Amino acid sequence: MVSMQNEKVKLWKKLKIRKWREKEQTYLLEGPHLVQEAVFSARHLLSAVLIDEAFHLPADWLLDDVEVYQVTHKIFTELSQTETPQGIIGVCKMVQPSVTIHQGRYLLIDGVQDPGNLGTLIRTADAFGLDAVFLGEGCVDGYNGKTLRSAQGSHFHLPVIHRSLFDVVAEMKKHRIPVFGSSLQGENMKKNAGGKKDFALIVGNEGNGAQPELLAETDEEIKIPMAGRAESMNVAVAAGILLYWLSAEGLATE
Amino acid sequence: MVSMQNEKVKLWKKLKIRKWREKEQTYLLEGPHLVQEAVFSARHLLSAVLIDEAFHLPADWLLDDVEVYQVTHKIFTELSQTETPQGIIGVCKMVQPSVTIHQGRYLLIDGVQDPGNLGTLIRTADAFGLDAVFLGEGCVDGYNGKTLRSAQGSHFHLPVIHRSLFDVVAEMKKHRIPVFGSSLQGENMKKNAGGKKDFALIVGNEGNGAQPELLAETDEEIKIPMAGRAESMNVAVAAGILLYWLSAEGLATE
Repeated sequence: MVSMQNEKVKLWKKLKIRKWREKEQTYLLEGPHLVQEAVFSARHLLSAVLIDEAFHLPADWLLDDVEVYQVTHKIFTELSQTETPQGIIGVCKMVQPSVTIHQGRYLLIDGVQDPGNLGTLIRTADAFGLDAVFLGEGCVDGYNGKTLRSAQGSHFHLPVIHRSLFDVVAEMKKHRIPVFGSSLQGENMKKNAGGKKDFALIVGNEGNGAQPELLAETDEEIKIPMAGRAESMNVAVAAGILLYWLSAEGLATE
Repeated sequence: MVSMQNEKVKLWKKLKIRKWREKEQTYLLEGPHLVQEAVFSARHLLSAVLIDEAFHLPADWLLDDVEVYQVTHKIFTELSQTETPQGIIGVCKMVQPSVTIHQGRYLLIDGVQDPGNLGTLIRTADAFGLDAVFLGEGCVDGYNGKTLRSAQGSHFHLPVIHRSLFDVVAEMKKHRIPVFGSSLQGENMKKNAGGKKDFALIVGNEGNGAQPELLAETDEEIKIPMAGRAESMNVAVAAGILLYWLSAEGLATE
């Protein structure tokens, strides 16, 4: 049992705050589903596992090299970031993967503010097998608890990188990767014109879309044709349709 | 000013609970954006507008026939269902529109539990210009505050109807409308095989998908081909891609 005064507990509590996550390059991963994903996909990133006194670790989790701390229910509740805590939290190291941009398929996210939307975007990028996701400076933190939960473990399947999107777009151009920007002012996407082997897709803020300065750097601004009276779509839904058009539309012919 | 004891205030507070919304066939619509949508698209449904003492109604809202109540900040806070209340709530009558199913395009939602996902689904159906959305018995309430906010006013653009999906599917069949079910066990959607003039699409619960008994009633179970390591997509993202395939893929050729 660990007391509330314990230095480790103090540190873990700080990890609920973005500034501290960045300073420590460490974040909290909550719930059995996500921790299991880490155990099986990225055990080297797990620096500790914290369990509520009543929680039983599944027998098939190989945690030999991971420190496991059983904490009191009171401490666990203070560490938890969910309304109905499920008894387990992983303490996980960030990777700022030194992704070398090469031919491939990328999602660039500019100024998305809702952690749930951001997580859903990362999960969607994973479902399409993209090579990396880049988060621009105005984005909510990719290691926010709610983002991690909405992404359902996709952080362990592809690199999620905070970096200036202007720099990323410049690199894409250097590699002659076509850059598309989702924009309500763009051209309607044309059937069968998608299906690119390499691409970068930029999607933007929930209310305002991507920054005009960034869209100005793209090769093409595209728009999903809309038939109804909604003014726009949710950013993650729009990204899903655009990624299908850009990538899986090609896959789907197989 | 209205006192907390006021019968009207008591009724409005009850509308935060589904049971009372259904009994009174009335719901609360929170925030200037949604209330504005009601004022301009469906003023006949607004039975009252409640404003926080500091809120100023926009001059161009014609509210002649709508009762406006200014309430104390304390009462407003008790009525609000958001973390950062924006000073205005509409009291809105439900329509259980007597939709006659005819040739057209429909979304059927089975057992979706997250109010945000449900609202995003309704917004997406609106963006594709569908004719109606049907919510099955196991769904979260379509008039939940969070659902209304995620739907961003789409409730005023197309009918949103709670009804047994088995009955709805039977009606679709009577009208020879093809019924598709989203399912991880389905066939991969084929490029260019979508683009239907009439269709019904069933999507299901976040964890388990649609009920097998309901999927058994469809003409075809379909699946989005996935290239990555995510086990599945968010239900609203999947619905967006399937609706694009079923409807807008056709539109996009124009």
